[in-house]
Amino acid sequence: MLIIEHLISKALIPEKMLRSFIPVSTDSHFPIQNLPYGAYRTEHGEIHLCSALGDHIIDLFVLDEEGFFDGPELNDQFAFQDSTLNYFMSLGKAAWMEARQTLQHVLSEDTPTLRDSKLLRERVFKKREEIELTMPVQIGDYTDFYSSEQHARNVGSMFRDPENALLPNWKHLPVGYHGRASSIVLSGTSLHRPKGQTIPKDSEQPIFGPSKNLDFELEVGFLTGPGNALGKPIPIDEADDHIFGLVLVNDWSARDIQKWEYQPLGPFLAKNWATSISPWVVTTEALRPFETQAPEQEPQPLPYLEQKKRTTFDIQLEVFLKTEQSETAHKICTTNFKHLYWSMGQQLAHHTITGCNVQPGDLYGSGTISGPTEDSYGSMLELAWKGTKPLKLPSGEERTFLEDGDEVIMTGFAQGEDYRVGFGEVKGKILPPL
Amino acid sequence: MLIIEHLISKALIPEKMLRSFIPVSTDSHFPIQNLPYGAYRTEHGEIHLCSALGDHIIDLFVLDEEGFFDGPELNDQFAFQDSTLNYFMSLGKAAWMEARQTLQHVLSEDTPTLRDSKLLRERVFKKREEIELTMPVQIGDYTDFYSSEQHARNVGSMFRDPENALLPNWKHLPVGYHGRASSIVLSGTSLHRPKGQTIPKDSEQPIFGPSKNLDFELEVGFLTGPGNALGKPIPIDEADDHIFGLVLVNDWSARDIQKWEYQPLGPFLAKNWATSISPWVVTTEALRPFETQAPEQEPQPLPYLEQKKRTTFDIQLEVFLKTEQSETAHKICTTNFKHLYWSMGQQLAHHTITGCNVQPGDLYGSGTISGPTEDSYGSMLELAWKGTKPLKLPSGEERTFLEDGDEVIMTGFAQGEDYRVGFGEVKGKILPPL
Repeated sequence: MLIIEHLISKALIPEKMLRSFIPVSTDSHFPIQNLPYGAYRTEHGEIHLCSALGDHIIDLFVLDEEGFFDGPELNDQFAFQDSTLNYFMSLGKAAWMEARQTLQHVLSEDTPTLRDSKLLRERVFKKREEIELTMPVQIGDYTDFYSSEQHARNVGSMFRDPENALLPNWKHLPVGYHGRASSIVLSGTSLHRPKGQTIPKDSEQPIFGPSKNLDFELEVGFLTGPGNALGKPIPIDEADDHIFGLVLVNDWSARDIQKWEYQPLGPFLAKNWATSISPWVVTTEALRPFETQAPEQEPQPLPYLEQKKRTTFDIQLEVFLKTEQSETAHKICTTNFKHLYWSMGQQLAHHTITGCNVQPGDLYGSGTISGPTEDSYGSMLELAWKGTKPLKLPSGEERTFLEDGDEVIMTGFAQGEDYRVGFGEVKGKILPPL
Repeated sequence: MLIIEHLISKALIPEKMLRSFIPVSTDSHFPIQNLPYGAYRTEHGEIHLCSALGDHIIDLFVLDEEGFFDGPELNDQFAFQDSTLNYFMSLGKAAWMEARQTLQHVLSEDTPTLRDSKLLRERVFKKREEIELTMPVQIGDYTDFYSSEQHARNVGSMFRDPENALLPNWKHLPVGYHGRASSIVLSGTSLHRPKGQTIPKDSEQPIFGPSKNLDFELEVGFLTGPGNALGKPIPIDEADDHIFGLVLVNDWSARDIQKWEYQPLGPFLAKNWATSISPWVVTTEALRPFETQAPEQEPQPLPYLEQKKRTTFDIQLEVFLKTEQSETAHKICTTNFKHLYWSMGQQLAHHTITGCNVQPGDLYGSGTISGPTEDSYGSMLELAWKGTKPLKLPSGEERTFLEDGDEVIMTGFAQGEDYRVGFGEVKGKILPPL
C-alpha cells in the first residue's frame, strides 16, 4: 500500500521538490532529501537506529516495529531492530532504495499517517539536542587510502623532492594501508595526547614522551554494504553497488612518531590511537544529485581500474579549530571531496583485486583531502607547511601543530538549489597526556 | 566441590605427571598438559567450543551445560556456550586458570565422573577425524609484527645493503603494521593465486596478472584477552595477563605485488588476500613449562619496553611443502619461536603505548620467524634467497616461489620429557588464479 502511494507521489513530485511536515531550514544538513543513518541511546538506555530530519532524529526501530517498512525487500527483515546498521547494510542496494523511498513517503507533507498521529509522532521524533548519538556501525576492518594528489605532492615535496613529489606507483594504483579499527570513535570523543618514541634531530637515540607534532587529517570515508566472498574480486562496474554511504573522518596523526616508526612497513602507532567519524552516514543515494566530473587520469589506469563513468560528488568540506583561549571556532581549511584523484569505486575494485573480501561495515578512508590552494590543505602539516608557516589565529595565537585543549571540528555538505545534504560534523578535543 | 578435589590432586600430582583416562601417545600434540581451545561443527550443524585430547576433541558446550565449570570464576558465566572464544577470553587470567584446572581434573585418570559414564563420554568426546573444526575466534583487528632479527637482516640484505641490513629503528621498537582481519582463514582453506599490479624489471609501466612470487611466511600469533580501554596503555609488566594463547600463522605474501605497492605506506594487497591460522589456540599456561631465555637486547630498549623477566617459549617450528607431483610433504624449514628478538609482552606494550585499545580476539602475528641457519628461514624468499638458490625437492622439482597446486604445511610443538604440547598444523594449498 505504502509503496503504491509512494510511486504515485514520486511520479508527481521530483525528489528535490519534496517537503516534510517537519519544518527544515534551508541551511540544515538534514532535509528530507538527505535522511542519513545513525544510532542513538533511548531514554530506556537501549540503542536504536535513527535518521535525521532538521533538528529532530527519527527513531527507525519504532517505524520498523509499527510496520512502516513493508515493501518487498524489507518486509519481515527487522532491518532496523539491531543496534548497528550492519545487517541493513548487508541487504544491498534494492533494500537501501526501498528504505529511502519509504522514509521519504512517510515524512512527506502529503502523507497523513505520521503527520496526523500525535501519539506516533511523539514516539518517532526526538529533539536532536536531547539525545546522545552512538556508533552507528560495527566496523570490522578499516582501510585508509592516500588518494588526494595535492596531499601526496605536498608530503612528497616536504619530505623528499619537490621535483619528484609523487612516488612512481602513485598514478597507477590507489595507495592504501590497513588501519586500526578498534580505536575508531564517534565525534565528540576527547582524546589524550599519545606518548611514544620519536627521534630528535641529528640524534641516533630515540626518546620517549608525548607527541609534539599532533595533527588532524580531513578525510571522507565510505562504508561497504554486501561485500564479496574471499577470492572473488568486485569488478569496478559493480563497486558502487557495495558502497552504502559516507562519513566524515578525522584520522588523527602523530607526525613525529610516524617519522621514526614508518620504515619499512608503514604508519602504525602514529595512527592507531584514534580515528573519529561523524555520527551520520550519508547514503550515496542522497548524494546522487551532486555527482560531478572527477579529475582526468593520466596515465590511463590499467583496465581493472578503468571506470566507464568518471564521476565523484561535489561535497564542500571545512575544518575549524577552537583553542582554549578562543570563544569561537576559526575556519582553517575549505576544500572539496571532488579533488580526489582516485574514486571510491577504484579504491574498492583495487582493494579486492587480489580476492580480499570486504564485509558490511568495513570503513575506507580517502586519505587527507587537500585542494589546489594553500587554504584548502587538509592537515596542519600542510597548512603550516611542516612548521615553517605557523597558522595565525584571530585570538592572537599561532599553531604549527595541535596543542592540548585544541578542538578540531570538521563539517561537510553538498549544496542544492535551496537545500543542503550534509554530514553534520565530526569533532574531537585533544586532552593533555595521561 | 570439583575445585577442592582438584586442589588435592594438584598437591599430590605435578602437572607433568598427569595422565588422562583417554590414552594419548607420547608424540601427540594434545596430551592432558595441553588442552588447547578450538571450535567445531556438531552433527546438528551447531558450532560448539572444544578442546583436544589425543585423537579426540572434547565438547566444552556439553561440559558447561552439565555444570562442570562450577568454580567461582566460571559458575553461571556460560563461558563455553558461545560459538567463539571471545567471551571466555574477555574473562581474564583467573577464569582461564580455573577452566584449565577444571578440565585437567575432569579428564584425569583418577576422576570417575566422566571416565565411568559411557553416556556422558559419548556426548563429550568425538573423534577428531570425524568432525570439522571451525574458526575459534572472531578476530577484530589483526596486527603483524616484524620481530625476527634474522628475517629482518635477510630481507634488508637482499633489498638494501648487507652492511646496514637493519633500519635504524629496528632495535629500538618492535616494528609492526596493521593487517587485514576479514581474510584470516582456518587451516585447510585453499586459496586462489591472487592477481595484481607488478612492475617488470627495468620498466616504468606496471602490468596486471597473477602474482609470480607467491610466498608463505611462518609466524606464530597471539590472541589477546581482556584488553584495555582507549587511552590507557597496558604496562609491560601486565602485558602477559592479556595474552590468552597462541596460534600458528601462515601470512601468505605476494612479493612482486608488495615490491611495487609498498612505498610509502607499507604492504597492502600483497598480504590482504589471505592469512591462515591453526584451528587450535594453545594457552600460554600450557606453554609455561617451556619458558626459556629470550635473546639479549642491545641496545637496551626504552623503559616502557623493558621486561623484568626476559623469557620466551621454546617451540620447535617446521614447514613442509607438498607439490602436486610428490606423494609426501617435504620438510623445508626447521626453526624455533625462541629466536624472536621482541617478545609478545614487548609487542603488546608497544602497541598500546599511544593508548590504542586492544580487544578480546585481536590477533598479533610475530612476523616471519627465521633462525640463524639457512634451513631455518621462514619464507621461500629467504630459503631460495630471492630466487637465486632454488630449493631442490626429492621429487626432482625445484622451487623459488610457490607454484599452483603446492600445499604448505606448518607445524609447531614444545617438547617435554615424555609429552609434547603442540599446535597441530596450519596448512593451505595454492589453487590456480580464477
